[in-house]
Amino acid sequence: MTSHTVYRTFNTSERREFVRITEDVQRAVDESGVSEGMVLVSAMHITAGVWVNDDEPGIQADALEWLDKLAPPSWKEPSNEVARQLLPDPGDYRHHRGGEDNGDAHLKNMICHHQVIVPITAGALDLGPWQAIFYAEFDGRRDKRLVIKVLGE
Amino acid sequence: MTSHTVYRTFNTSERREFVRITEDVQRAVDESGVSEGMVLVSAMHITAGVWVNDDEPGIQADALEWLDKLAPPSWKEPSNEVARQLLPDPGDYRHHRGGEDNGDAHLKNMICHHQVIVPITAGALDLGPWQAIFYAEFDGRRDKRLVIKVLGE
Amino acid sequence: MTSHTVYRTFNTSERREFVRITEDVQRAVDESGVSEGMVLVSAMHITAGVWVNDDEPGIQADALEWLDKLAPPSWKEPSNEVARQLLPDPGDYRHHRGGEDNGDAHLKNMICHHQVIVPITAGALDLGPWQAIFYAEFDGRRDKRLVIKVLGE
Repeated sequence: MTSHTVYRTFNTSERREFVRITEDVQRAVDESGVSEGMVLVSAMHITAGVWVNDDEPGIQADALEWLDKLAPPSWKEPSNEVARQLLPDPGDYRHHRGGEDNGDAHLKNMICHHQVIVPITAGALDLGPWQAIFYAEFDGRRDKRLVIKVLGE
Repeated sequence: MTSHTVYRTFNTSERREFVRITEDVQRAVDESGVSEGMVLVSAMHITAGVWVNDDEPGIQADALEWLDKLAPPSWKEPSNEVARQLLPDPGDYRHHRGGEDNGDAHLKNMICHHQVIVPITAGALDLGPWQAIFYAEFDGRRDKRLVIKVLGE
Repeated sequence: MTSHTVYRTFNTSERREFVRITEDVQRAVDESGVSEGMVLVSAMHITAGVWVNDDEPGIQADALEWLDKLAPPSWKEPSNEVARQLLPDPGDYRHHRGGEDNGDAHLKNMICHHQVIVPITAGALDLGPWQAIFYAEFDGRRDKRLVIKVLGE
């Protein structure tokens, strides 16, 4: 069995942003020489995720707006009444008592999930025609790490 | 290490539907001859998922109704005021500007997650007594593919 | 390839509760002798999950309150109007027709996802500095099982 581990650091200009990483993942597979196996792509932070979806800007804008309703930030006005009612009942996230302001990003991490596994077949990522891999930043503008781990033969 | 890859195509009669695939996954494991390892079960589309849960029709009907509230389709009336407010603020999904109508299915894909990994122990899927594996279709009535990849020894 | 499988049983005192299991997972890796590989941590029940996040009580209280709004129990008053509207339209979960009362826990399982994979590098869990692993119980007070499966070399 061969294993190959790559770390990537992101520092996004937006606080919430999707960053395409399909090619980074394929490069890690190429470097490993693995032709049959899998690659784990996993955020190393608790306020980020990884999403496999279409590389279409409309979907990403839709998803970021929607995530702000389901898991509302408390550092800006809630988008509407639903977002307001999904905020914590104490008036703000309990997590913010220690000085943080990213309680929403932890919940977005839960919805999105922080990792995916991509199968490797004949040396290539075995993705469907519209599947692209994205690092999903929910509390950016600072260095955040991701691990890419290739396993196979 | 042994690897074995199987593709399955679904064309559901309903637009949203859960399809039990536990036996398909076990068959792929049997064919591989793997007794210790894991099997990745992953939708190859961006409007579908894979869910491990109970094979109980009530749960599936509950889940489909609930997903339509959380990630509302725009081609039918929102179920209620919460669903209406979770629709995008521009009045429709930005993704629909290109002629699509499945913006909701991309968000359902995020909630459900598009894949699971099942451990293989002594040649069998190491699932709990009520765990069954389902392909979760969120925009069906057309050919959609799934990959089952067995890895182990 | 080495594989090592460990089962753990939880019986939480609260119906919904996060239980830290990072050390249990590391112990399974230590026992296996694997230095490069991965470890699958997967709930064997359909009303539980596994979450990698910060070990901070405020986040966990926020997450449990929020999950009760998004996937409301029907055995207590909904938290507010949003939670009420996210309950099933027949008045209660269809799943409860068979005598169950945990329909909400199946939906929480979908949001949280029932499993994670942790990379193993140089014999250690390759987690970020704030990442801890939690068993996420959504319908406890009875024996529930989790499987930890280490694979690698």
